[in-house]
Amino acid sequence: MKVHKHMLKVSTQKEQNFYEITDEVRQIVKESGIKEGILTVFSPHTTGAIIINENGDSDVIVDMIYALDKAFPDDPNFKHMEGNSQAHLKSINLGSTVSLIVSNNLVEIGIWQGIFFCEFDGPRDRTVNVHIMGE
Amino acid sequence: MKVHKHMLKVSTQKEQNFYEITDEVRQIVKESGIKEGILTVFSPHTTGAIIINENGDSDVIVDMIYALDKAFPDDPNFKHMEGNSQAHLKSINLGSTVSLIVSNNLVEIGIWQGIFFCEFDGPRDRTVNVHIMGE
Amino acid sequence: MKVHKHMLKVSTQKEQNFYEITDEVRQIVKESGIKEGILTVFSPHTTGAIIINENGDSDVIVDMIYALDKAFPDDPNFKHMEGNSQAHLKSINLGSTVSLIVSNNLVEIGIWQGIFFCEFDGPRDRTVNVHIMGE
Repeated sequence: MKVHKHMLKVSTQKEQNFYEITDEVRQIVKESGIKEGILTVFSPHTTGAIIINENGDSDVIVDMIYALDKAFPDDPNFKHMEGNSQAHLKSINLGSTVSLIVSNNLVEIGIWQGIFFCEFDGPRDRTVNVHIMGE
Repeated sequence: MKVHKHMLKVSTQKEQNFYEITDEVRQIVKESGIKEGILTVFSPHTTGAIIINENGDSDVIVDMIYALDKAFPDDPNFKHMEGNSQAHLKSINLGSTVSLIVSNNLVEIGIWQGIFFCEFDGPRDRTVNVHIMGE
Repeated sequence: MKVHKHMLKVSTQKEQNFYEITDEVRQIVKESGIKEGILTVFSPHTTGAIIINENGDSDVIVDMIYALDKAFPDDPNFKHMEGNSQAHLKSINLGSTVSLIVSNNLVEIGIWQGIFFCEFDGPRDRTVNVHIMGE
């Protein structure tokens, strides 16, 4: 059994945006030399998320950010002193971690799928933990 | 360490529906011969999702599809040219991948739980990647 | 390859609340002796969820429960006879399972993150399945 770990850096430039990290993750998997295994991509931040999303048309990201603001709006009744409950809400709904299959040293994702770090309370310097376990 | 992989086919019949794949996944786990490990169920589609949901009363699925349309409505301001941003939105909220525990060669899920592929932009021919790693 | 399993008990006291289980999970990881691996935390209940959420200010939980009720409201059109479709809806949106990285026998989570069992249809006696696989 082999384990390979890497911490990615993502410097977010806006209050909200999705940052594709598919190429970086693919490179880490390649460097791991692990042929068959499980890839874990994890955000250690309570106002970010890791998702699988379409990466063909950048308007999808524009629509997702717009729609998440409508589905999970800010609210004057929020009590959290930091004032970013809306960002926490999006984070718990989208999730902090994604598990993917590694096969033949490649990440198994669909042709239109990418791996994204979602920023909901930026801009900030963020990290993403990438972990591969297998053989 | 052993790895077992299988690609399931799901032919969806409607624009939106949830398709239970618990029995097929259980059979794949059985065939793997893996006693203790991790099961990954992954949808390579940007307008589908993999979830754990109640499988006792089929009205739950009716209610979930109805409520997801209300929580994540279509919107005239969506810019994505394909016109299926609502399906992408549901996909990122429910998620493309589920990790489960395999114990004694059985999938550990609750008595009322099933594994479902969710179609949000059908009908289409879909695939689901099933992967078991362990011993 | 080593596998370690443990079933946590969570007695929920309210109809809705989030219960932090980070310390219990850390203890199970410690007892496993597994240095490098993958941690799976799973809820076998269709009206609960497992999430990673902020654990610094308890008002975040108050805000999340309030906002989830607004994002996923109860509805007179729900057909499920048990009357708890709203709880199922929250469960599928937040998810039943979380995969985390174990490194140096420690759970890799951010400084403000905790692992929570979310109750949406309590009070009940709940269980959470904890599983570590690695070396």
